[in-house]
Amino acid sequence: MTTTPQLQTGPLPASTKIHLPGMLHPQLRVPMREIALTNGERIAVYDATGPYTDAAAQIDVRRGLPAPRAEWVEQRGDTEAYTGRAIQLIDDGLRDQEQQLKLREVSAGLQRQPRRARAGANVTQMHYARRGLITAEMEYVAMRENQRLEWMREYEADAEREARLRGNAMGASIPAIITPEFVREEVARGRAIIPANINHPELEPMAIGRNFLVKVNANIGNSAVTSSIEEEVDKLVWATRWGADTVMDLSTGRNIHTTRDWIVRNASVPIGTVPIYQALEKVGGVAEELSWPLFRDTLIEQAEQGVDYFTIHAGVRLPFIPMTVKRRTGIVSRGGSILAKWCIAHHRENFLYEHFEEICEIMKAYDVSFSLGDGLRPGSLADANDEAQFAELRTLGELTKTAWKHDVQTMIEGPGHVPMHMIQANMTEQLKHCDEAPFYTLGPLTTDIAPGYDHITSGIGAAMIGWFGCAMLCYVTPKEHLGLPDRDDVKAGLIAYRIAAHAADVAKGHPGARARDDALSKARFEFRWTDQFNLGLDPDTAREFHDETLPKDSAKVAHFCSMCGPKFCSMKITQDVREYSAAMEAKSAEFRAQGSELYVPIKVA
Amino acid sequence: MTTTPQLQTGPLPASTKIHLPGMLHPQLRVPMREIALTNGERIAVYDATGPYTDAAAQIDVRRGLPAPRAEWVEQRGDTEAYTGRAIQLIDDGLRDQEQQLKLREVSAGLQRQPRRARAGANVTQMHYARRGLITAEMEYVAMRENQRLEWMREYEADAEREARLRGNAMGASIPAIITPEFVREEVARGRAIIPANINHPELEPMAIGRNFLVKVNANIGNSAVTSSIEEEVDKLVWATRWGADTVMDLSTGRNIHTTRDWIVRNASVPIGTVPIYQALEKVGGVAEELSWPLFRDTLIEQAEQGVDYFTIHAGVRLPFIPMTVKRRTGIVSRGGSILAKWCIAHHRENFLYEHFEEICEIMKAYDVSFSLGDGLRPGSLADANDEAQFAELRTLGELTKTAWKHDVQTMIEGPGHVPMHMIQANMTEQLKHCDEAPFYTLGPLTTDIAPGYDHITSGIGAAMIGWFGCAMLCYVTPKEHLGLPDRDDVKAGLIAYRIAAHAADVAKGHPGARARDDALSKARFEFRWTDQFNLGLDPDTAREFHDETLPKDSAKVAHFCSMCGPKFCSMKITQDVREYSAAMEAKSAEFRAQGSELYVPIKVA
Repeated sequence: MTTTPQLQTGPLPASTKIHLPGMLHPQLRVPMREIALTNGERIAVYDATGPYTDAAAQIDVRRGLPAPRAEWVEQRGDTEAYTGRAIQLIDDGLRDQEQQLKLREVSAGLQRQPRRARAGANVTQMHYARRGLITAEMEYVAMRENQRLEWMREYEADAEREARLRGNAMGASIPAIITPEFVREEVARGRAIIPANINHPELEPMAIGRNFLVKVNANIGNSAVTSSIEEEVDKLVWATRWGADTVMDLSTGRNIHTTRDWIVRNASVPIGTVPIYQALEKVGGVAEELSWPLFRDTLIEQAEQGVDYFTIHAGVRLPFIPMTVKRRTGIVSRGGSILAKWCIAHHRENFLYEHFEEICEIMKAYDVSFSLGDGLRPGSLADANDEAQFAELRTLGELTKTAWKHDVQTMIEGPGHVPMHMIQANMTEQLKHCDEAPFYTLGPLTTDIAPGYDHITSGIGAAMIGWFGCAMLCYVTPKEHLGLPDRDDVKAGLIAYRIAAHAADVAKGHPGARARDDALSKARFEFRWTDQFNLGLDPDTAREFHDETLPKDSAKVAHFCSMCGPKFCSMKITQDVREYSAAMEAKSAEFRAQGSELYVPIKVA
Repeated sequence: MTTTPQLQTGPLPASTKIHLPGMLHPQLRVPMREIALTNGERIAVYDATGPYTDAAAQIDVRRGLPAPRAEWVEQRGDTEAYTGRAIQLIDDGLRDQEQQLKLREVSAGLQRQPRRARAGANVTQMHYARRGLITAEMEYVAMRENQRLEWMREYEADAEREARLRGNAMGASIPAIITPEFVREEVARGRAIIPANINHPELEPMAIGRNFLVKVNANIGNSAVTSSIEEEVDKLVWATRWGADTVMDLSTGRNIHTTRDWIVRNASVPIGTVPIYQALEKVGGVAEELSWPLFRDTLIEQAEQGVDYFTIHAGVRLPFIPMTVKRRTGIVSRGGSILAKWCIAHHRENFLYEHFEEICEIMKAYDVSFSLGDGLRPGSLADANDEAQFAELRTLGELTKTAWKHDVQTMIEGPGHVPMHMIQANMTEQLKHCDEAPFYTLGPLTTDIAPGYDHITSGIGAAMIGWFGCAMLCYVTPKEHLGLPDRDDVKAGLIAYRIAAHAADVAKGHPGARARDDALSKARFEFRWTDQFNLGLDPDTAREFHDETLPKDSAKVAHFCSMCGPKFCSMKITQDVREYSAAMEAKSAEFRAQGSELYVPIKVA
């Protein structure tokens, strides 16, 4: 417990962190990653890696990240610092004070006094947006979504190409430029959320919504069976390095509270949790003993720590539970099954459903966003889009309207396991019943037959549903269904999901999304090997793969590669061909004018 | 050169090779893999792994596989053995007789006397099909496509589930049972091919067509820069072990002819080649020096060896070449660029186009199938579905009709790099212009920004185009664009593509395809860990991943796993819940009859 995690920090290859100031909020320093190419171009890309990839940053995980957002929150004047809830032995699953003292020592530098809304105030981004206020968070989001558009112009200059490749937005309304006002409108409308607890001042705000870039979530968290606090902080940093836009801490077992201190204080991305996990630990794992007061207390505990969104399984209603009995794989959501067990044991309606408005009151005092859990999601293709799943989804739609009544930001969780031909129907159902509240899906997996490769089975579904309108994709690692992901698995899951998210952005026609593809393809065509590596999602692996076959430095500028060798390099031949072609194009026009018969001397019948 | 390759042979875990006899052709021994589950079920799956996974088989790669098909071919009485073309130094790129003698020694046990059609005969499966003949090959194909349907019935018993999950065939016409007559009709119609050179008697016939299971091709082949004959045979066996339905030998450089002897004689799957590669070697890599006589001779050389399909880039027509000049990445097909260079240098129409009917004459004398190459496929998203690509595709449609006039089996190659929203348009264009001749695509890659992970970028596109009607998917390995794949890459590429093919089969509603998903999900739900591993595409990796976290044997029967631990296991909780639910279902019906108000005591506004 006393070792400080060894984190992988420092810039990605050829990359520099740049910070842009705001216009409405000049104090903003909106981060981007600028990739320097060997031909002098500088390509700016969206960057959620936080200070860890900033060469200038001083990182001390025992004291947490700097907290620039503290000032924005304070300046709004609608919150107050207060003496938070006293930490209890049970929060970390400890037996005695001595254990607790040891644990507190480890996280002493990470304790902060909590803030909450002043009496009667509502401090959610949705509330501000509906009152017409463009917050610092909204401007921040607008700027980072645009990725410094200037460099993309070169790649969008060809009118024929742009027309041919124009995206199919599938009903989304994506503007050419994301303005702060557009962000405000989307948040006010409920079509996007900015998960941003006022107690998470280390946060770099981001948006989740169908008219923004598709986002990726990574799950981390220790469990009763394995892993430690240090490992989880390391995974947090590692996950953001490889592209996690938000991170969920799904810890169970011991030290949950302290693990969360470590994670939130060191996170520049929004942190989500499933509070029922900790609540269950507090009642020794006996679902029947869960109660609203205990759960409520856990929500406040976590809200004070700065958790940005809570998964709340309020849609697992008593009458839906029998609908799962005939399923191939029953209830597969942990939270869903815990609540189902509670409902059945008491033969009562889900207490989260019954107390939903009280939960809203807590959410709006801290600006915690709802992630309405899909406790009845399908756990196999066989159960996809069934009665139980859709009954819950309709309930989540009801609850969304209730949350919006309180101006509480809300997104909706989705499956799971869905064959390709049923994905669009699932997305359509969600848009309809939840009135375009952001959808946040796990995959979906498009087949069940590849344990060990579910980052791929689900990456296919994730790309498709992202195109169809899903706002955030919860990653799946190769270890899904088999074991807990290690560092390599986390990275493999993230790269697969960054691919899915980007493929979706390109397909739906997100402005500028394709420019990075074009920049990389151009580098590829011009044999700028280093640029090809550095523009990719994983420069390290690309370079390593290339070097396995052609390790010499001279090969990095060679006009061929190991696949075909110099004689068979089509790109090289193409370039040789181009000068001929240019001349021929002129001739060709001339011949066409004469009827172009010269080009088809032999007719195939 | 004198070491015998060390191959990975032997059955997959818990698997037995079974052989079913034919009805029309009782001498057939159609292989399937039967997976024995711990609950006594036996699950039969399609199996293209050949004798290498048969515990009873004797493998000697220096003598080649047994040749059961020799008899079928001979019995048709329309072929003759003859003295084949004499092997020349240039076939293997050798300098002198001494080198050649050494090389011949290595492959002495693999030399066979070639056969060809008797004068005036046409020995293609298409020709037989059109004459109403159901060949042994056709019955073989029908039987293996059905995967012994009996075991699936249990998994298809729930009418609600079957109706809910019914596939969307996207215009395909897939019957509930594949009969030999159906295979004949599809081959006669040109909608499916059975690549089966009469000189490849080691072949286990298979079909490629939109109304059959989606197939996967793996490319292997040595290159001038690296790899050896032994490595390539090892890769062949390795590739079929992990699910290659056909294998293309894309060797370049030295020893091409001899490598091909090793590969074809040891292959139970169809082998494809791109003859222009060898032709180019014969003219020292100088594209301008290619000629029809040299190319024709190479076709005969390879047809005599038993190659089952040839990629022929006859659609790269002279007038299309200038269309590629404005592209982001020009011409990226090796074959396409070689022919473009030839056309430009001579300012003449592509000689493959001009001599296409002569090529048909060769194809029908051996039953080599066409794989009409897409020499102008896009090499980047930016070039997708452009003028050059579609001009060539329309030409391939023309050539298909010419080939069909000669009863030559034909499939069409496709891209490449295509963003998700443009994949369906590409498929539709192909179906229309090529009159449903099987489409065979490389991916397509749905983004260019992930070098090192193109098995995933392309696996997404492959799954989608497979659903839309593509018949065979050419795999892409993680090394694509970077280097030559090693064993691990070949396996990674194949598993990704088996996932894509299966996801497509499920989506289009191929009869029984989903049963394996259901069997695995059932095993998962019942905590039959070993069965879960063994039903997966890669049992070894699944088991290994599980054992990393919970290595004990007792964990294989544990009713929980490492992800959640015993308290949080949703599946365990679900099972606990089921007995309550069954009782409640009865109550619930009673309550519903009374208006069900008991279940919604609190209304959320």
